Amino acid sequence: MRTHVFFGGKGGVGKTTVSSAYALKCARTGIDTLIVSTDPAHSISDVFDQNFTDEPAAVERVDNLDAMEIDPEAETERHLMETKRALSDQVSPAMVNEVDRQIEMAHQTPGAYEAALMDRFIDVMRNSDEYDRIVFDTSPTGGTLRLLSLPDMLEGWIDRLVYKREQSIDLYERAAIGNEEPRRIMDGDPILDRLTTRKERFEFAGETLRTNAAFFLVANPDELSIRETQRAIDELQSYDLEVRGLAVNRLTPEPDPNENGRGARFLRDRVATERERLNELHENIDPPVVAEIQTRVSEVKGTILDTVAEELSIDVDQVSPDTVSSG
Amino acid sequence: MRTHVFFGGKGGVGKTTVSSAYALKCARTGIDTLIVSTDPAHSISDVFDQNFTDEPAAVERVDNLDAMEIDPEAETERHLMETKRALSDQVSPAMVNEVDRQIEMAHQTPGAYEAALMDRFIDVMRNSDEYDRIVFDTSPTGGTLRLLSLPDMLEGWIDRLVYKREQSIDLYERAAIGNEEPRRIMDGDPILDRLTTRKERFEFAGETLRTNAAFFLVANPDELSIRETQRAIDELQSYDLEVRGLAVNRLTPEPDPNENGRGARFLRDRVATERERLNELHENIDPPVVAEIQTRVSEVKGTILDTVAEELSIDVDQVSPDTVSSG
Repeated sequence: MRTHVFFGGKGGVGKTTVSSAYALKCARTGIDTLIVSTDPAHSISDVFDQNFTDEPAAVERVDNLDAMEIDPEAETERHLMETKRALSDQVSPAMVNEVDRQIEMAHQTPGAYEAALMDRFIDVMRNSDEYDRIVFDTSPTGGTLRLLSLPDMLEGWIDRLVYKREQSIDLYERAAIGNEEPRRIMDGDPILDRLTTRKERFEFAGETLRTNAAFFLVANPDELSIRETQRAIDELQSYDLEVRGLAVNRLTPEPDPNENGRGARFLRDRVATERERLNELHENIDPPVVAEIQTRVSEVKGTILDTVAEELSIDVDQVSPDTVSSG
Repeated sequence: MRTHVFFGGKGGVGKTTVSSAYALKCARTGIDTLIVSTDPAHSISDVFDQNFTDEPAAVERVDNLDAMEIDPEAETERHLMETKRALSDQVSPAMVNEVDRQIEMAHQTPGAYEAALMDRFIDVMRNSDEYDRIVFDTSPTGGTLRLLSLPDMLEGWIDRLVYKREQSIDLYERAAIGNEEPRRIMDGDPILDRLTTRKERFEFAGETLRTNAAFFLVANPDELSIRETQRAIDELQSYDLEVRGLAVNRLTPEPDPNENGRGARFLRDRVATERERLNELHENIDPPVVAEIQTRVSEVKGTILDTVAEELSIDVDQVSPDTVSSG
C-alpha cells in the first residue's frame, strides 16, 4: 500500500533539502518513490540539477526515483480554465459570459491558489498507483487544511439543492402525471454531479491524509522556528493529523577542540545556543527529533544530498502502513 | 506627511529583526514611529521583551516608538463577527440564520485570513495620524495583493446592482405616480452603502501603497532566497509597487586572519559562498542592497537590536515623501 509523506515547516527552514534527502534514501532502499514539489522557485530541479515539469519524470542517475514540480500559479490558471469549460457546458450560451466573469472574480480571491493546489494534490494522491511512496516537500497548512472541512459544507449545499429540486419535480409531476422527464433530468443534473464529485474528492483527501500519510516538520534551532513548529503541530492536530517527527536543519558545526580566535569563539557560542534550543525541542515538544542536519558550506545538491540522507534517522520503513497500524 | 514602510520577504529570513531595527533607528532620530507586526509568533514582543496587543503601546525605554501586534487568527474571527452583525441588521429575522451560515462558510475558505488582515492594515493606515512613520514587519504578497484589484471588481457589482434597482424603482414609480418612497429606500440602501464603503477603503489602500509607501525586501545570502527575492520584486512590480532596497540578513562572520582548523575553514568557505551570492544580488537585481547584517550568536533582541540598527544603511529620510518625489 502506498504511503504519502509530507515535510512541512516555514519557508527557508530547508524542507526541500530534507524531503529530497528522504526521497533519495527511500529510493536507495528500493522503494518506488515520487517526490512532488510545489515550490515556485523550482528548488527540486536545483537539487537534482535537472528540469522537472508537472508530469513525473525519472531522476537521472538515481534508480526508483521520479520527481515532479507543481507550479501553483500555472495550476491556478489551469483550474480557472477547467472550471470555465466545465460550467460553460451547463449554462445557456447567453449566460456564458456572465458565468465566466463570476469565475474570474472568484479566482482573484486570495484562496484560489490554495484551492487549485489542493485539487492538484488530490490528483497526485489518486492517480499515482505505480509508486509505493509519494514524498511532498510541503505540508497543507492554514487555508489548505480548512479545505478538508469542505465535504461537510458541500454536504449541506447538496442536501438543500436536492431538496429544492425534488420539490419542483413533485410540482412538475403533479402537473403532468406519468411524465418522468423531470426526474430523469435531476438524475443527470450536471451541477449536482459536480458538487458530489468535489465532495467525494475532498472526502478522499481527508481520509488519505488521516489514515495513509505521515507528517514531518522541518525546524531550525532558533526560538522563532521552535514556536512556529509548535503552532504547526497544533494546527495539524486540530485536523486529526499527527506529526511523526521533527527534522532539525541548519545546525552550526563545531570548530576543532584546540582552535581559538574570533571564528572559533563564534562557532562555539552558536553551537551552545543551538544546543539549548535543541534541548527545548526534546523536552517541550512531543514528536521526536528524527534528524539533526548540519549547515553545509554551500547549497545542498548533487553528492552532498547523499551525505544529508545518511544523517536522517527516519527509518524508511517507519512510515509504512504496517508500522503505522502496529504503533 | 506620514510614510508607510513595509519589510517583505519569506518566513525565517529575519523580517522582524530588520523592521524592528529600522523602526528603532527612526525613533532614535526623533521620528514618531509605530511598528506593526502580523507575526502570529509574537516576535515583536520577543524582540522588545514586552507584551504588545493589537492596540499601539509605547515601547519601554525607547522614546518616539510605539508597537502593536495584529493576530491574524483573532482578526479573522473579529471580521467574521463584524460581518455577521452588520448584515443581521439588514435582513429579516427569518433570514439571519441562513445569512450567518453563508458568512461562516465564506470564512472557512483559504482567503478569509488575508482579507481580514488587509482590512486591519487599512484601519491602521487610515487611523494613525499621530505617527510620522508606520513600519510593517511584513509586506502584502500574492493573495493580499490581489485584493488591491477588489475596487474594480466591486465597481462592476455596484454598477449592476444600481442598474437593477433603478429598473425596479422605475416600475414601482410608474405603478404609483408621485410616490418617492422606493427612490428614498435606494438612496439609503445598506448593501449598496457597504459595497461602496469597501470599494473606497480598498481604493484608499491601493492609492496609499502606490504613492505613500516604501517597500524593502529582506533576503538571506543563498540561492533560494535570491530567487524568491526576484519573484517578490516582480510580483510587487506587477501591482505598480516598487522595491526600494534589499536588506541581506544572516551573513556569516569571518574568522581571524591567522585562525586555522576545521571551524575557521568552514567559516571562510561559507563567507566565500555568501560573497558570490551577494555579488549576484548586486549584479542581477535592481534595487540596491541597503543593509548587510551578520548572524549573531543568539536571537537579536534587547541591546543587540541597537547594533543591528547601526548596520542598516537605510537613511531614515530616504523614504520620506520629499525624496520619493525628487528621486
